[in-house]
Amino acid sequence: MSALQARPEEPGVAAVRVPLGGRAYDILVGRGLLDGAGLRIAALGARAAAIVSDETVAAVYAPRLAAGIEASGLRTALVTVAPGEASKSYETLARVCDAILDARIERGDLVVALGGGIVGDLAGFAAAIVRRGVRLVQVPTTLLAQVDSSVGGKTGINAAQGKNLIGSFYQPRLVLADIEVLDTLPRRELLAGYAEVVKYGLIDDPAFFAWCEANGAAVLSGDAAKRTYAIEQSCLAKARIVAADERETTDLRALLNLGHTFAHALEAETGFSDLLLHGEAVALGMAL
Amino acid sequence: MSALQARPEEPGVAAVRVPLGGRAYDILVGRGLLDGAGLRIAALGARAAAIVSDETVAAVYAPRLAAGIEASGLRTALVTVAPGEASKSYETLARVCDAILDARIERGDLVVALGGGIVGDLAGFAAAIVRRGVRLVQVPTTLLAQVDSSVGGKTGINAAQGKNLIGSFYQPRLVLADIEVLDTLPRRELLAGYAEVVKYGLIDDPAFFAWCEANGAAVLSGDAAKRTYAIEQSCLAKARIVAADERETTDLRALLNLGHTFAHALEAETGFSDLLLHGEAVALGMAL
Repeated sequence: MSALQARPEEPGVAAVRVPLGGRAYDILVGRGLLDGAGLRIAALGARAAAIVSDETVAAVYAPRLAAGIEASGLRTALVTVAPGEASKSYETLARVCDAILDARIERGDLVVALGGGIVGDLAGFAAAIVRRGVRLVQVPTTLLAQVDSSVGGKTGINAAQGKNLIGSFYQPRLVLADIEVLDTLPRRELLAGYAEVVKYGLIDDPAFFAWCEANGAAVLSGDAAKRTYAIEQSCLAKARIVAADERETTDLRALLNLGHTFAHALEAETGFSDLLLHGEAVALGMAL
Repeated sequence: MSALQARPEEPGVAAVRVPLGGRAYDILVGRGLLDGAGLRIAALGARAAAIVSDETVAAVYAPRLAAGIEASGLRTALVTVAPGEASKSYETLARVCDAILDARIERGDLVVALGGGIVGDLAGFAAAIVRRGVRLVQVPTTLLAQVDSSVGGKTGINAAQGKNLIGSFYQPRLVLADIEVLDTLPRRELLAGYAEVVKYGLIDDPAFFAWCEANGAAVLSGDAAKRTYAIEQSCLAKARIVAADERETTDLRALLNLGHTFAHALEAETGFSDLLLHGEAVALGMAL
């Protein structure tokens, strides 16, 4: 576990290293990462970045992100899709890939996924297959994406036969989880993400679960230090599992899916309300 | 190079191991591999195989291949596309992926690419992305595919912006190069493939180039032992380069592309006629 401790970055920013050999990468968690993204992205050595986002998120955050990246000397292009699960389709994938090619993104250049899990899955898959793989940076804008879908490299779209049946395992070069974006997140989405946080405590870490019990209200009401800590610990837990089983070939990573199903059931049962905290207790009871 | 010597398999069958660690695989070259494919494919441990082919190749070979696979206890399904480069499209890719899913191919099951380079590229890419990767067996039916496109893991489709711009590096579990299928190959296609064979001699192996000079006519006229040897040596040469640079990140694998461009220019200049043998001499002169 020593390789997977969080390490200090700068005041207020936590860094989690996902140790995957030649595909290792950092997850940075903290306030102000969106505005400071330009320097960190430029440090990856690319000359251009295609920012892929949905129309809702792009309207709020894309201009700030693009300005920061351009200030660091990279050319940018913006590719937007409609918000919602329907964008995880063959048709939208083809349109996004073509737009990335039109933006003259080469193998050493970047796709930056700016949004929640849907954008991360779609843009990540496009990055995996354009030119057989261009570099990917995830900038998740929901708590759920910050602690779950932006970590671990699962990308993809839906098929008529089921969700996420077409895709790739494709690791990002960097994940920037700016907790500032959570301030404007609808409470329902915040709770959905927090259910995932609690899940990591349940399946992996009793001490962290106890911490969630004591600090859940502060995390949900906006305490920056506690939000950062909760996301950092969640990413550490997921990174441990992903490092042990990158391509989900054993039951270890399937454990995450089981927890996922369970957590989603909990969320549904509690109607995404404050009753979720009761749901945690129920889940704990079942786990015990 | 010791790990990359061809090794004996059974009389008349040569085996080339592509040493890629956990993704290592065998290329078998010889007569009768198509009819004997069932046992070798069953040995991979799958329960079902989706055979992807084009309508022309499928009409000739798919029933024999499917019968052999089914005789070994696997369920099979046949997925066909129109012959020709136009099938390397987003639309055909989506149709092939959906057909593979409809055939209930799970991660441990197989996609068998039966055809030339177009089918290999398309079916290989579909195998790479269905369920984030199902097992792939290449059964190349042209000389060009046997010595080039079926080896090395480059899969993909075309975009409006250019050829092969959307795809994956995805290694097969097994390549079966049956030289019997070359007996019915149009001479033009045989020569196109043979230009690639000679290329390996040019860029990698003067002794093999000299062997081509002495035995080219016998290879082209159908000598089984010499065809097997020429394909085996070509696969060994390509396997050495792929093993050193699987994802084409250095100039080493780019060397293959340079040779490719050069050989294609030669083919065009000689109109795919017997003058190609003259073309080889010209190429040798330029290389020197």
